[in-house]
Formats: sequence, C-alpha cells, structure tokens
Amino acid sequence: MAERFVIGVDGGGTKTEAVVMDEAHRVRGRGVGPSSNYHDVGSEAAEAALHEAIDQALADARVSPEAVAGICLCMAGVDRPADRALVSELARRIHPFPRVLVHNDAVAALAAGTGRLLGVVVIAGTGTIAYGVDRHGRTARAAGWGALLADYGSGFWIGLEALHAVVRAADGRGQPTMLVERMLAHLNLKDVPDLVPWTYRHPITWGRFAALAPLVVEAADAGDEVARDILHRAGCHLAESALAVIRRLHLQAEAFDLVLSGSVWRAGEWVCAPMREAVLAEAPQARFITPTRPPVEGAALLAWEEIHRA
Amino acid sequence: MAERFVIGVDGGGTKTEAVVMDEAHRVRGRGVGPSSNYHDVGSEAAEAALHEAIDQALADARVSPEAVAGICLCMAGVDRPADRALVSELARRIHPFPRVLVHNDAVAALAAGTGRLLGVVVIAGTGTIAYGVDRHGRTARAAGWGALLADYGSGFWIGLEALHAVVRAADGRGQPTMLVERMLAHLNLKDVPDLVPWTYRHPITWGRFAALAPLVVEAADAGDEVARDILHRAGCHLAESALAVIRRLHLQAEAFDLVLSGSVWRAGEWVCAPMREAVLAEAPQARFITPTRPPVEGAALLAWEEIHRA
Repeated sequence: MAERFVIGVDGGGTKTEAVVMDEAHRVRGRGVGPSSNYHDVGSEAAEAALHEAIDQALADARVSPEAVAGICLCMAGVDRPADRALVSELARRIHPFPRVLVHNDAVAALAAGTGRLLGVVVIAGTGTIAYGVDRHGRTARAAGWGALLADYGSGFWIGLEALHAVVRAADGRGQPTMLVERMLAHLNLKDVPDLVPWTYRHPITWGRFAALAPLVVEAADAGDEVARDILHRAGCHLAESALAVIRRLHLQAEAFDLVLSGSVWRAGEWVCAPMREAVLAEAPQARFITPTRPPVEGAALLAWEEIHRA
Repeated sequence: MAERFVIGVDGGGTKTEAVVMDEAHRVRGRGVGPSSNYHDVGSEAAEAALHEAIDQALADARVSPEAVAGICLCMAGVDRPADRALVSELARRIHPFPRVLVHNDAVAALAAGTGRLLGVVVIAGTGTIAYGVDRHGRTARAAGWGALLADYGSGFWIGLEALHAVVRAADGRGQPTMLVERMLAHLNLKDVPDLVPWTYRHPITWGRFAALAPLVVEAADAGDEVARDILHRAGCHLAESALAVIRRLHLQAEAFDLVLSGSVWRAGEWVCAPMREAVLAEAPQARFITPTRPPVEGAALLAWEEIHRA
C-alpha cells in the first residue's frame, strides 16, 4: 500500500498555516497563506488563502493530493454549524479529500498539547481564550471576546496594563516603576505625555500593545514590583478563564490535560505560578502541558486520530 | 459709566460654548460653536468656532464688543505656554478685547464650583481628569490621558466595566448580574455574542461606551451587586486621582474646595460615598462642592475676578 498523509490547517486572522504529516506524525511539508477568516476577508479570499497554504505544503512535501487521506481545518471565526459547513465546502472545492474535519482554531492548540480532542487549553497571545472538551465530547469556552471585552491576561492586556502603570506613576496615582524608563526607551519617546500620540495613533491595532508585554517580563526579571504584579494578575485572570471551562465541564475532580498555548506563557513563572496555584486549588488533578508542537500540527494529529478511530 | 460685561468661553473637543456675563454675575447671553481644540481641527477652524460662539453670545445679550471688559477662554488641549499664546492671538483677532485670559478647560470646571482659581476639581464625564491650584498659584493634574490610558472612573471606564461584567457573567468567569439582561435590552441585542459586533463597530468612539454608564446606576439602584461594585470602584479611582493632586499641592492638612464636575457624579452616592470616604481619610478638611453653574460660567467668573483684582 502506498504511503498515506494528512493535512492540518491552522487558519488564523493574520495567516493560514498548513502542514502535510505522515503516519509516523512527522511533518513532511509546510505552507502558508494570508488570513482565511471568512468573516473578515470573505469566502472567496478565504478559499484562495487555504488553497495557497495547502498547495504550498503539498509541493513542499512532494505529495500529490491523491495521497491525502484526510484534512483537519482549525479556523478562526468558526463557531456555528453554518461556519463548519462553509469551510468544509471550501476545502472540498480545493481537492476532493476523502475526509474533511472542521474545528475552531482553539482546537488546534489543544490538540498540539494533548494529541487529541480532549482536555482544556488556555491560549494567551495577543488575545486570550480558554476552551475545553470532555470525554463525552461536550465543549465549553471562556474569554475570547477581543481586546475591549475582558480578554484579561492576554498580551494586549499586559501591554495596556504596563502603559497604565506608567501614566499612573507619572501622575502620582500609582507606585514608581522601572516600566517608565524602559517603556520610553523602548518606544523611543522623550517623556510620558509622548505616550498619548503613540497610544491613539491610527490604526489602533491590538498587536501594537501586545508587543509591549516582553518589556514587562524584563522589568519583572529586574525586580520591578509593579511589573511582577501585572504578570501575577495576568496569571490569575487566565486561571479564572480556565476554571470557568473546568467548572462547566465538571472536571474539578478529574485528571485532565491543561494546555498552555501562546506567547504569554513565555513570561515563565511570573505568570505560570499564580495560574497553576489558582487552578490546582480547585482542580488538583490538572496536568499542565506546554506544547512542543505548533497548533497547525495539532490539526494534523486530529486528522490522524479521526482516521484511526473510523 | 456704561454697563460692563465679560465673556467666558469653554472650548471643548465637541463644542465651544460662550456666555456674556454682567457685573452682578448674571448670564445675559449664550452662544455655541463647533470644536475649538486647535490640535484637532487646526487654528483656522478653531478661530472660526470661537468667533461663532462669541458673536452669538454677544448678539443674544444685545451687547457690543466695545462693552466687553475682558474674556477668559478655557480651552481643551491648552497645556503649554505656546498653546496659550496661540489662543490669546486668536481671541484678539476676533475682537480687540482689553483683557484676554487663557486656561485649560479643567480650570472652567474648577471656577464654576469655587468662583475662583483655587481648589481641586475632579471632572468625570466621558473621560476624567483631576486638576488643582493652590494659594501660591501652583498647579497639578492627574489622569486625563484618554480612554486607553487609565482614565479609571470615567463614564467610558464605567461603560466598559459593565460590558466586561456582562461577558464575564456569560462565561462563568464573573458573578451573575442584572446588567446582562439590561444591557441586551438597552442595545436591542438578542444575545451576549451580539455585543462583539456592537463593541468593535467602526468608528470606536469612547462616548458610545460612556453612554452605557446610566444603565449601571439603574442596576445598582435595583440592587445589583456587580453594578454597585463597578460604581464603588469608580469612586475609589476618582479619589485616587484627586489625592494625587492633593498630595502634590500638599493640601492634606488644609481646608480647600473639591469640586465634582461632570455627568458621572449624577450616579449619586454609589460613586460619591467611596470618593468622599477615601479623600477625607487623607485630607479631612476637603469641602465637597457640586457646582450649580456650568463650566462656561466658571470661565466668565474668572474674567471678573481678574478684572477686580487688577
């Protein structure tokens, strides 16, 4: 029998990634395209982005579409059955794959940590979302409403809290902090009032604020209490999102995987320690996992799981 | 001697108000024009807006420019000496007034409460700022950096906290709250996820969020603990801004007027009680004043004060 492959896709709001994976779970080829969130870019542009990423990955792997046993697409903006049906239709138009699985992109991050559709993931990048699946296939989510709607603990939130700390220190409303000098130096600004045009400069993109998060980690490492407090609160907020999911799935007394995905966790113990402490106080058998694979490979693992289960 | 008059101007980012006031401090005429914040609209448009508001007030009062002994312009965006010089020049181009005073618009709100350039004001409308002047003419300010830079306790902040409470309740991250049903009914939305397009709809104007603040007061009045907590925290944050100014002016042990200006104070004791408590704990001789005159009349009072002092 000829060698078989699957394709995993992680379709985000910024870019679309695809991998071709063999049966030994080795990545054989990678591709990338622009955004495939059809709510943002429309279904034609989404199809083109998927097509680009998939064909690039197949070409990179030197694999023909006929050798692909299944595809799993984990896509931003896919929440309702109608979303799944549309993405499924787009995928089948690209190639007549024998199996097509469609999930929300949070699922790819979960599977990248657990290798399967089971457990809880807390993604904390520019934004944040917590998502979980129990043994019965029931799902729950918390947060993920975007920068202005309580995405507490996200990179955006950490960056904005740092800016708040800087102006509050300048006002005498808050504690002095190393963040003042570090922020001004990093942004190449002379004085705190120069933060005003920087903050409100159009377009206001949330990523611009999230990019300040590493400064907070550096200040925390250097001993700054204000920075440590921001990261501690981020960890507590992220635990709160995880616990909302854990409670809704009634996992408190169970052993389950809790995957920490996204760049915020690179802050290390400043964020992870309060997160772990708060979660374990209520769900003592949670197993914390930092994935070694990117989400797109999680999508491919789910395609294999589906095929082997069938 | 012929009757004399002054003009007061409150030049905000949305509109420019002017009044003609007689020596008995009675308002004799009113005028209004568009924004005169020259940082936003340019100096030509600012001059035209001032001209419109001033001439309308003079016409309304049936007073000729020659009968005006002085003008006090309290203008948004006026912070540096160069700003004052420019606004002063614009005013003199409109009419050759014998006296021209220029201040930041926070000063008008202070004078509307105290009748003079002395004391502390906390303005809390869509945004918030605390501003103070001591006996020696020294000034200090806190907050006023805009919606994204820790304008805690503002109408925008209250509205956004209410949205956060709604999505957190929906997630199971926060306490249940009456705000969920009240917010959806008020915005004519079916379900919590419908808040996402509402929140991120372009243009994102801070006033749209501040307009939600009265809902929070209604829910607090109806017994909602989450709404009461938001308003309590607003009061504490506004006290923090006031105290930052009080400390910098070393007023803790002195008797001084503390003016509460802006729509947020209409929330009543939910906001005012924690504010008073926190301020009085550190500055026990603060006298709280809710102004009965609008800021534009404060500007006119300052014009009279300057003339009588001279």
